[in-house]
Amino acid sequence: MNPELPVIAVLGGAGKQGSGLALRWAHAGHRVVIGSRTPERAAAVAAELNALLGEERVQGSDNRDAAHQAGIVVLAVPFAAQRATAEEVRDALDGKLLIDVTVPLVPPKVGRVQLPDGKSAVEAIQVLLGDATRVVSAFQNVSAHHLRKIGHEIDCDVLVCADDKAAGEQVVELAHAIGIRAWYAGPLANSVVAEGLTSVLISLNQRYKVPGAGIRITGIG
Amino acid sequence: MNPELPVIAVLGGAGKQGSGLALRWAHAGHRVVIGSRTPERAAAVAAELNALLGEERVQGSDNRDAAHQAGIVVLAVPFAAQRATAEEVRDALDGKLLIDVTVPLVPPKVGRVQLPDGKSAVEAIQVLLGDATRVVSAFQNVSAHHLRKIGHEIDCDVLVCADDKAAGEQVVELAHAIGIRAWYAGPLANSVVAEGLTSVLISLNQRYKVPGAGIRITGIG
Repeated sequence: MNPELPVIAVLGGAGKQGSGLALRWAHAGHRVVIGSRTPERAAAVAAELNALLGEERVQGSDNRDAAHQAGIVVLAVPFAAQRATAEEVRDALDGKLLIDVTVPLVPPKVGRVQLPDGKSAVEAIQVLLGDATRVVSAFQNVSAHHLRKIGHEIDCDVLVCADDKAAGEQVVELAHAIGIRAWYAGPLANSVVAEGLTSVLISLNQRYKVPGAGIRITGIG
Repeated sequence: MNPELPVIAVLGGAGKQGSGLALRWAHAGHRVVIGSRTPERAAAVAAELNALLGEERVQGSDNRDAAHQAGIVVLAVPFAAQRATAEEVRDALDGKLLIDVTVPLVPPKVGRVQLPDGKSAVEAIQVLLGDATRVVSAFQNVSAHHLRKIGHEIDCDVLVCADDKAAGEQVVELAHAIGIRAWYAGPLANSVVAEGLTSVLISLNQRYKVPGAGIRITGIG
């Protein structure tokens, strides 16, 4: 663990996507606090990740406590819980970076893009939290399955959207730190592409009978 | 020229994207009719393409005549002219396949996703034309520059969206025929990703100072 690196809270971190990201950042040296509506579940997942890491780097807690402990907060809850969770931890977010991983999937048609109010889901969260919190959208398209395998190369790039460019670049670096190619892809409005892409990738998985289609950006570097 | 292949009309085919597609399909053996509001311009571009091809495979005309002559119609006009052009040629489209290449860019902020009414632009065209025309969205992300170089490998995949799956698969084949990897990516609603992705790629071009960022789908085949 590197005490100079910021503490990262992963709200909804007992879920697949959240726990995969938690594992990768812990492996990269961050102290990670998993938040959950059920702190016992968060603690169980933290124990599981620590066993994989061979070191105590991950703790479990409730979402509010996790957000209070961290300098960077990751929102990795299902779409239906996105707004309520952001409201619940709101007073812990001032001056912090919030990385929103939410994909607005509307079951049962999860392979169909269904944007809330015709916008990206993350834009509403930035409006809710106001300017004191820098909201960044990222990591919607990376398969949880691949995140879980430390050292495994992830054949999918991450699109990072933020109205605050510096915050966006910081999340690009946080992706690089866990072995993922990432790109600053413009303002939060552009997150409709990252959020919608998850439904497109689900459609591709169904049509082509593969487990995990992804994207790579070409033409850079 | 292969007379067994359908004739393709490219409306707005005097523009960069349209003329690049026209060139590639003509090279693959299709007779191509370029449509334009200015038939003289269409004729001039047709002559230019025929010179590149070394054979008379491309003609120029107005949009209505081009649509009437073809079995497959491609809409490659600027967003501001999309609806009016579809209305203008509407009576020529019954029973045909319409491939809509339109990207809803709203200058001056072309690097920002700005979806009309929070939906893909192509959905409104399918509603306008009704069920007698199968509307397919494709080719928004391929750089005109690369299309123009016959034989040049295009390092960008095409996402094909259509409510009619068979029509979508037909357009996947039309892309393969001109050397482009393409995938059936779900219903027209999913075209928000393909349309928005052009703004994301423009943002990437600006941020990373490259001429033509693109995407590749990973994890299939």
